[in-house]
Amino acid sequence: MLINCVAYQEGKKLSDIPISAISDYLEQPGCFVWVALCDAEPAELAEMQHEFGLHELAVEDAQRGNQRPKIEEYGDSLFVVVQSVEMTGNELHIGEVDIFVGPNYVLSSRKRMSQGFLGVRARAEREPHLLKQGAAFVLYALMDAVVDRYFPVVTTLETELEAIEARIFEQGSERTNIKSLYELKNKVMAMRHAVAPLLDALGKLHGGRVPALCMDTQEYFRDVHDHLHRINATIDTIRDTISTAIQVNLSMVAINESEVNKRLAAWAAIFAIFTAFAGIWGMNFEFMPELHLKYGYAGALLFMFSVAGYLYYRFRKSGWL
Amino acid sequence: MLINCVAYQEGKKLSDIPISAISDYLEQPGCFVWVALCDAEPAELAEMQHEFGLHELAVEDAQRGNQRPKIEEYGDSLFVVVQSVEMTGNELHIGEVDIFVGPNYVLSSRKRMSQGFLGVRARAEREPHLLKQGAAFVLYALMDAVVDRYFPVVTTLETELEAIEARIFEQGSERTNIKSLYELKNKVMAMRHAVAPLLDALGKLHGGRVPALCMDTQEYFRDVHDHLHRINATIDTIRDTISTAIQVNLSMVAINESEVNKRLAAWAAIFAIFTAFAGIWGMNFEFMPELHLKYGYAGALLFMFSVAGYLYYRFRKSGWL
Amino acid sequence: MLINCVAYQEGKKLSDIPISAISDYLEQPGCFVWVALCDAEPAELAEMQHEFGLHELAVEDAQRGNQRPKIEEYGDSLFVVVQSVEMTGNELHIGEVDIFVGPNYVLSSRKRMSQGFLGVRARAEREPHLLKQGAAFVLYALMDAVVDRYFPVVTTLETELEAIEARIFEQGSERTNIKSLYELKNKVMAMRHAVAPLLDALGKLHGGRVPALCMDTQEYFRDVHDHLHRINATIDTIRDTISTAIQVNLSMVAINESEVNKRLAAWAAIFAIFTAFAGIWGMNFEFMPELHLKYGYAGALLFMFSVAGYLYYRFRKSGWL
Amino acid sequence: MLINCVAYQEGKKLSDIPISAISDYLEQPGCFVWVALCDAEPAELAEMQHEFGLHELAVEDAQRGNQRPKIEEYGDSLFVVVQSVEMTGNELHIGEVDIFVGPNYVLSSRKRMSQGFLGVRARAEREPHLLKQGAAFVLYALMDAVVDRYFPVVTTLETELEAIEARIFEQGSERTNIKSLYELKNKVMAMRHAVAPLLDALGKLHGGRVPALCMDTQEYFRDVHDHLHRINATIDTIRDTISTAIQVNLSMVAINESEVNKRLAAWAAIFAIFTAFAGIWGMNFEFMPELHLKYGYAGALLFMFSVAGYLYYRFRKSGWL
Amino acid sequence: MLINCVAYQEGKKLSDIPISAISDYLEQPGCFVWVALCDAEPAELAEMQHEFGLHELAVEDAQRGNQRPKIEEYGDSLFVVVQSVEMTGNELHIGEVDIFVGPNYVLSSRKRMSQGFLGVRARAEREPHLLKQGAAFVLYALMDAVVDRYFPVVTTLETELEAIEARIFEQGSERTNIKSLYELKNKVMAMRHAVAPLLDALGKLHGGRVPALCMDTQEYFRDVHDHLHRINATIDTIRDTISTAIQVNLSMVAINESEVNKRLAAWAAIFAIFTAFAGIWGMNFEFMPELHLKYGYAGALLFMFSVAGYLYYRFRKSGWL
Repeated sequence: MLINCVAYQEGKKLSDIPISAISDYLEQPGCFVWVALCDAEPAELAEMQHEFGLHELAVEDAQRGNQRPKIEEYGDSLFVVVQSVEMTGNELHIGEVDIFVGPNYVLSSRKRMSQGFLGVRARAEREPHLLKQGAAFVLYALMDAVVDRYFPVVTTLETELEAIEARIFEQGSERTNIKSLYELKNKVMAMRHAVAPLLDALGKLHGGRVPALCMDTQEYFRDVHDHLHRINATIDTIRDTISTAIQVNLSMVAINESEVNKRLAAWAAIFAIFTAFAGIWGMNFEFMPELHLKYGYAGALLFMFSVAGYLYYRFRKSGWL
Repeated sequence: MLINCVAYQEGKKLSDIPISAISDYLEQPGCFVWVALCDAEPAELAEMQHEFGLHELAVEDAQRGNQRPKIEEYGDSLFVVVQSVEMTGNELHIGEVDIFVGPNYVLSSRKRMSQGFLGVRARAEREPHLLKQGAAFVLYALMDAVVDRYFPVVTTLETELEAIEARIFEQGSERTNIKSLYELKNKVMAMRHAVAPLLDALGKLHGGRVPALCMDTQEYFRDVHDHLHRINATIDTIRDTISTAIQVNLSMVAINESEVNKRLAAWAAIFAIFTAFAGIWGMNFEFMPELHLKYGYAGALLFMFSVAGYLYYRFRKSGWL
Repeated sequence: MLINCVAYQEGKKLSDIPISAISDYLEQPGCFVWVALCDAEPAELAEMQHEFGLHELAVEDAQRGNQRPKIEEYGDSLFVVVQSVEMTGNELHIGEVDIFVGPNYVLSSRKRMSQGFLGVRARAEREPHLLKQGAAFVLYALMDAVVDRYFPVVTTLETELEAIEARIFEQGSERTNIKSLYELKNKVMAMRHAVAPLLDALGKLHGGRVPALCMDTQEYFRDVHDHLHRINATIDTIRDTISTAIQVNLSMVAINESEVNKRLAAWAAIFAIFTAFAGIWGMNFEFMPELHLKYGYAGALLFMFSVAGYLYYRFRKSGWL
Repeated sequence: MLINCVAYQEGKKLSDIPISAISDYLEQPGCFVWVALCDAEPAELAEMQHEFGLHELAVEDAQRGNQRPKIEEYGDSLFVVVQSVEMTGNELHIGEVDIFVGPNYVLSSRKRMSQGFLGVRARAEREPHLLKQGAAFVLYALMDAVVDRYFPVVTTLETELEAIEARIFEQGSERTNIKSLYELKNKVMAMRHAVAPLLDALGKLHGGRVPALCMDTQEYFRDVHDHLHRINATIDTIRDTISTAIQVNLSMVAINESEVNKRLAAWAAIFAIFTAFAGIWGMNFEFMPELHLKYGYAGALLFMFSVAGYLYYRFRKSGWL
Repeated sequence: MLINCVAYQEGKKLSDIPISAISDYLEQPGCFVWVALCDAEPAELAEMQHEFGLHELAVEDAQRGNQRPKIEEYGDSLFVVVQSVEMTGNELHIGEVDIFVGPNYVLSSRKRMSQGFLGVRARAEREPHLLKQGAAFVLYALMDAVVDRYFPVVTTLETELEAIEARIFEQGSERTNIKSLYELKNKVMAMRHAVAPLLDALGKLHGGRVPALCMDTQEYFRDVHDHLHRINATIDTIRDTISTAIQVNLSMVAINESEVNKRLAAWAAIFAIFTAFAGIWGMNFEFMPELHLKYGYAGALLFMFSVAGYLYYRFRKSGWL
């Protein structure tokens, strides 16, 4: 589905143009075309391939989808794949933005994303001195938008982790904890697959040997790179903390279990006193003189309760009860 | 076993040729020979070595088999080993394709594979403009075919993992889970041995210093490289998830165990009440006034059941029962 | 909030100057301006950006805060972010110092820090031969101050770890230990996020390709780098030790548990003797000759205590009791 | 102990020569000396040092023994240390081969090895066209022989691992398994110490900057390197599998334990029924009407067995028994 | 404390010289001064700084102590820090040697070390042809001495590990094992902090870009480097083995525990037989015909013992007892 197809000159919008006019505008010097697609049909992509002269392999990738984040050079143009991450309720949704960038055009095609880039275009049009820098700046603006949307997701994951941490030393929530930790781990891994390859790829857009296209906007890409670094560091911490938390949770299960066992053992011992002595005085021997004492029964009860009480006191003191 | 032995010119099939004619065709300019073997005998390989002038060490490797994936340069020709991965039922089968590539020939020899490359040849012959690019394109087409067949296998492994995940928090399936996880781990490791070394090797066919042969088809090899990257990333995630799942499974065993123990402890306590009091009132002391009360028995039963009931209520409330 | 705004010449303080005069002083040859801000307002930063001609992206980063440690080149100036680590009571506080450095100015802006850099300035002013080296030396002095403050924090973390280690083989403190280890781990991870990225960044200020600004002070930056290396190595040891300690703690839980279980089993066996025999002699068979013996009861007690004593002796010897 | 001392020319054996004649032969152009020692005495090494003009540090290393695998350049000669791995019964034996290689000599000195290199020499002498390549080819032949002997050892380790895997899900063999896994791990680590450093070192004998000596035999060394890569990959898989197997084994202990506990709990519950009710009807209250019923006893037994049977049925159904 | 202060020429000792004469001797061509300090006072270091013209930052590091191993270039001189490792009884002691090396001087300053370098000096003086090589050779000799002293320590650690391994599958020593493993781990980590950074640093003294000072002694430093590699590899193996051993120890606890539990369960079952049947025949029903049989009691005992015996036999056969 076509969202926008606009030609710009000197950073200012010329007009919305029909798709078939793209190749004409591309030939005008100083002119620059920015097209946005959403969940593009193969036919649309084929049309774009024809108008922009895109490379076959890049278009194939865009059609198939499910690409890993990457930045590929085809001659003097770039093919960029970025994964978007959105959160609805408690679920992560991974979308994809394929961006074809040439010296005087940008074609972005997003998939499985609920949020578009209208805001990016609007802001870019409000700042003609920046938009004048052309395709590389638009590429930056789009990547920056995608990466900026990672931050709230990462924050949500951090909050989830903190919620688990808050109850990790509580008794009785081990089952919930381990389940939450496992689900969180899976989300973090998905997030990581969006971030890590992009981190590698972005390193090539500033610093060393940079594609001609991005020569003058290196500092902008370094800025995005830096944001990604922060996100990546946070993700690594979350992963590390999750795996420690899983271990800690197991330790807590073991510790709680061992305390329950101690308590169980202590009560079992106390009851065993009654059972054993009652058993003895329940034997049917003929000559058991204490059975015939007037206060035998009371004495026996007293004795049994005293021993039990003493045990209770001892267990209490040693922390078993 | 010889599958095909065909000479091509300008991307078009000339004819099937006898093996002994190979060296003649190789001398014709613009001519290009593509031979496919299957589970080749040493004699066949020796014949090929003679016709194509293959390097001794490369032929030795092909004869021995069980090579790791690699790309080796011998002068201006390449020796490429790729492992195929096929799944029959629940079992992984690792096959091997050895490909000898020179400026004007390709010799592929597959082993322990049920599926061949007839489709690759057919498609290549339908697209003479691509086949015209010669040996490097055929190498690409073969590698691409092998790598594309990794995807469904990886998907199957992912599905197996999801099936395990679906029952990982269920009680009673821990034994099956741990067994499945261990078997899955072994499969993933085998898969990884096919993928990881090829990933390293393929990096040399695009980007930096590239063998002369592959100079003009770099973008194709980058594409295969990218597919491998995706597969490798998925494999890494599966491995990581398996090892977390093993830990989680152990935690679940411990958690379930500790709940069983609590329940056991609770019932043991309740029964201990009956045993202890019954023991006391079963003692043979002469003076136990309550034994002679009319409603002594009923009272005792009431008392015992009350205490047991109270305990039951307490245990219930604290989640032990 | 402005803390200081001072102009220097030849390493000597000229005078405190108003903000609006900064750009004038910057134009005087051999003059050098050093400004310190604390929890700066956006308006203050905007003013500074105007006076010093700072790069937009750097100022944006400083405004947003929560940057990861980094050293970025913008033309011939540097933008440096360092994280401070302070400890109040048992809590770690991560602050941030943003330093803008140009050929003849240093602007430092600290956030969420209780301790400032007045001492650094005072010492620098006492050593004009060093201060004469200009902006790079001030940058060094500031970074050195921040890094030096890491040492006592790391020492505190080490002391905490030693305190945990001292009681890790004690029975009964497993719960406290695991909690302390987990909290310590989180602190160490926070510390690590301050140190590790700075370590990477500082490597660029000495040795290889160094920004022109820091050319003559390389040995000073190498010195800071070296301090960071030490801190980083200590942090790595603490992390490694924590994760071993968590495992050891779990092992201790299991070992203690298994000893408690053995003791429980031993006592249960001893009591079972009484219960079983008392049960037997409490049966109501008519012909149980031993019941009618004069010393039957005494004999029975003797027998039971003997067996129990023997068991006790055996359990004692095998270390169960 | 001297094994062989032979002079070659043009790839053909001239004659066995006395040690003292070595330096004479070395001076003849096109002549090449190959000496083999076994468990050499210091005096022998000193003599060799004198004849061949070996570097002091290399000779010292050879004397001390217990070197890690390495390839060191001393001027235009090489000092190579390779570890051999032999298996007798169930034990690994690590031997050592020190090889001094110069433009026209090879001196190999093996230690703690039961198997020598006579076969290597015999084969080399049968192939004069290869032996003509001189010292580098002999070095290759020796290293190839050592590395080829790794394969059966690795296969044995794999077989041991498979034997353990076959019984890892069996009940009752956990103790044997963990012991076998630990011993296997230690063997694999020893093996790894022979392989990993050699892998690094061999990388320098082909591809990039190669010692002049090995310039023309690069492809041979690449072949050995490739074999080592395969061995190393297998070792890594074994290590990885061992550590998963240790975890799985622990899980199996926990799972089996928890099933034993459930069974124990179930039977304890069934017996508790009898004990409790027998206790109640064993009380000595005067008014217990059911005691006087004709079928009271039978009824009580019926009741107790019914409850026990019902419990048995319930436990059976829920998988506890 | 000054240990030695000696001037050398052409590898031969001139004489012991007073500290104040150092700078004079340094000016004589071909002359070379070697000073050794032990636990130096700040004043001594200041004097040395003045005589040798040492760099301020290096002297500061030497004064503060607790440096990590490193090799720093200051102009044409080097500042080297090496950590010594000594073992007294069961304790590791980490000392430190700071070495200042210039073209014609070596100043070594050791701290917290019981053993000095008199032997190194004596041996160097006995070999004037080596000592003639000057400062770099002395540096080598000192580093070699320190590194050689690592070997016995590493061997001690290996022996400790073997002692633990010998009892790891024994029952009853789990508590001692885990404690020993933890302490060993800490020692190994301390050792590693001495070795690992030095390994990195030493790589710069041979092979690639080497400080002018060490140009001609590269092979010596490569030799030290190689020794360190061996030590480091051994340390890595010990670490790896320790962490496997900790896991194995935990497994052994679990396995032993589960066997104790089985035994406990078996005996509990056997005793439960007696208790249950004795309870039944202890009931007070009026009509219990078997109670009145002549051999009722004997039959009951026989019955109970038979059932118990049968259970015992069954448990024995299934390995529970």
